[in-house]
Amino acid sequence: MTDLHLGQHISRQFNEELEDVRSKVLYMGGLVEEQLANALKVLVNDEVELARDVINADSAVNSLEVDIDEECTRIVARRQPAATDLRLVMTVSKTINDLERIGDEAKRVAKMSRKDMDGALRDDVRTDLEFMGSLVRDMLRQVLDAFARTDVDTAILVVKSDKKVDKRYKKVVKKLIKQMGKDPDTIPGTLNIMWAARSLERLADRCQNIAEHVIYMVLGMDVRHIRLDDILAEIEAQSELEQEE
Amino acid sequence: MTDLHLGQHISRQFNEELEDVRSKVLYMGGLVEEQLANALKVLVNDEVELARDVINADSAVNSLEVDIDEECTRIVARRQPAATDLRLVMTVSKTINDLERIGDEAKRVAKMSRKDMDGALRDDVRTDLEFMGSLVRDMLRQVLDAFARTDVDTAILVVKSDKKVDKRYKKVVKKLIKQMGKDPDTIPGTLNIMWAARSLERLADRCQNIAEHVIYMVLGMDVRHIRLDDILAEIEAQSELEQEE
Repeated sequence: MTDLHLGQHISRQFNEELEDVRSKVLYMGGLVEEQLANALKVLVNDEVELARDVINADSAVNSLEVDIDEECTRIVARRQPAATDLRLVMTVSKTINDLERIGDEAKRVAKMSRKDMDGALRDDVRTDLEFMGSLVRDMLRQVLDAFARTDVDTAILVVKSDKKVDKRYKKVVKKLIKQMGKDPDTIPGTLNIMWAARSLERLADRCQNIAEHVIYMVLGMDVRHIRLDDILAEIEAQSELEQEE
Repeated sequence: MTDLHLGQHISRQFNEELEDVRSKVLYMGGLVEEQLANALKVLVNDEVELARDVINADSAVNSLEVDIDEECTRIVARRQPAATDLRLVMTVSKTINDLERIGDEAKRVAKMSRKDMDGALRDDVRTDLEFMGSLVRDMLRQVLDAFARTDVDTAILVVKSDKKVDKRYKKVVKKLIKQMGKDPDTIPGTLNIMWAARSLERLADRCQNIAEHVIYMVLGMDVRHIRLDDILAEIEAQSELEQEE
């Protein structure tokens, strides 16, 4: 076997390892999507019996985080990946952490839901939570898509959506504060609704984090503390530079 | 120059790079410690003028996160570290993320503090917040120490302290719910106190995360989703194994 063949062989194996990590991340993402969908059903549609499922999925999600992280470290140690491959591995390690936290937050929503909420959850707030929930589900689906297809445009959509969730969250909090003042008996339940809304807002933040990791993975630009407009300007500048080259 | 000399030369440079990363993490940790100390002074001692300092420190902390992360990626790409060194780099990348979030949370506390709190913050709750705050400050100091001295025992102390913060947090929430029911006029201010208490509880979680990273760095054991007793049992088993070897 010549060196060239050996090189190709190693590189094929290496590609398979990277592919394996990517598909594990997507599998983990699928589990977390399901946790989120079920948590929202508990919160908004009163399907209380699903709370168990959300909580039970937690240990599988946790083990996947640890497994994938170990695999990333092993790949870095053995394959010594450069440039794009290394960025993929570093991105995965951060992404699975955010995914795991999304699962935690979904668990929190499921556990909190229905606790003292009867009588406290008014129809208009239920509609707000439904709206926030469907935005966040879209964000999670899109960001996993963006990761799978290394698609920066979709990642940017996710960053944009975060603003919408924040806006509705603030509206909900104002409503709930008013409600507590008017009807002090519902305070414990209303607080739980507020925590659930807060969890949805945090979930959106986590999706935004993953979107930023994807942008880093594809473009090699760390956009974590940059405002959206500046991200877009920088991406444009970079693509112009590439065209000139 | 023989190969051996070259090897030593590279390895000295490499050690210097690792040392540089470590000291940057500790510098970043120092900034975040100061943010937290100031945020607590705003919250508990009414030193409102310090809120600006906490907010202003944010951009320095953010840039440090991005810088250190870049340096970690560069080290992995160029030095291809193995075993312990690789674990150090991976740990740093996770630790700085938690540090940055601690800074964010401190900023949140500083911003929220005093907003509508007048009349809402009773003396006993102030004492609770002071207690939680000093626990969290200790946790942050200890965990940075544990990182600096690769000291597992101190890291375990931090994991243990998290329980104390959680316990006091639950007590505070109960008090605040009662207070909102009795005195609806103070609801907006009381909610802000509750958010601040929640932030302290989250801060403690972040310190615990870092403690878990330190344990991983030193022992190579991923203890993120393991209960404290099981962590201790596993560490004991491992040290027995090492003694036998």
